[in-house]
Amino acid sequence: MDDARSRFADARVARLATVAADGRPHLVPCTFVLDDDVVHTAIDAKPKSTLALRRLDNIRAHPQVSFLVDHYEEDWSALWWVRADGTAHVVEDGPERERALDLLAAKYPQYRATRPPGAVISVTIERWRSWG
Amino acid sequence: MDDARSRFADARVARLATVAADGRPHLVPCTFVLDDDVVHTAIDAKPKSTLALRRLDNIRAHPQVSFLVDHYEEDWSALWWVRADGTAHVVEDGPERERALDLLAAKYPQYRATRPPGAVISVTIERWRSWG
Repeated sequence: MDDARSRFADARVARLATVAADGRPHLVPCTFVLDDDVVHTAIDAKPKSTLALRRLDNIRAHPQVSFLVDHYEEDWSALWWVRADGTAHVVEDGPERERALDLLAAKYPQYRATRPPGAVISVTIERWRSWG
Repeated sequence: MDDARSRFADARVARLATVAADGRPHLVPCTFVLDDDVVHTAIDAKPKSTLALRRLDNIRAHPQVSFLVDHYEEDWSALWWVRADGTAHVVEDGPERERALDLLAAKYPQYRATRPPGAVISVTIERWRSWG
C-alpha cells in the first residue's frame, strides 16, 4: 500500500465524490495534498458560488467521501488507480485551514500566486484501495 | 453544451460514482461510450469478482450515478471538466448488451481483441454540467 499512497500523493489531480442530501452522487475534480492520513482540498471558487456551496452542503449532510486518482494509457496492462475513502469536515477558518493552505501551496506553485479564498475540506482517510 | 458533450464523448476514460446501500460514495475509473444520451460501460473483470459485484449491487440499490471526464494541466486557465448525471441499469445479456459491446469495441481496439465477459451498465443521462 506504500506504492499506492505514493502514487496518490504525487498525483496533481484527484476526483472527489460526495453524496447529496437527496442521496445522489456528486463528482468534481480537485487539487489536493496528502498530509499523513488526511487529504486536504481547497475551494478555489468564490466562497458564495453555487458549485462550492453544493459540495460543502453535501459534506455536511453526508461526511463520507471518496477520492480517486487514476492513470490511463492505451496499453491497458499499465493502468492503475488508487482510491481513498474517509470522513470529511469543512474548515472555514483558523490555524487548521492556514496549515492546509500552506501544504497546498507547497505542492502547487499556482496557490503561492493566489491563495484559495474559500473553505478547506479535510478528509481523514479510513480505507485505501488500489488496483494495477 | 455541444462542446462539452464532444469533450466527454472523445475522452478515453471517465470516473463513475455510485452510492452503496449504506449511503457511502464509491468511485472507479472506467472506459465508456456515449450513444445519444446513454453512456455504456462494461465490467471488464470476471463476472464474479468482488469489485464488479460491488458496483452492480450499488446500482441496484441506488440507480442514480454520475460520470466525470476532466482535463488537467499545470496552466490552470486550460482546465476543464464535464459531468453527466443519470439513471443506471444493469444489462446482463441479450441484444442491448451486444449492441453496447459493439459500440465499445468500435471505440476501443482493446475490446476488439477481448470482448468484456461481464454485464454492461447503461446510464440514461438526465443532466450535463461542465466547466472551463
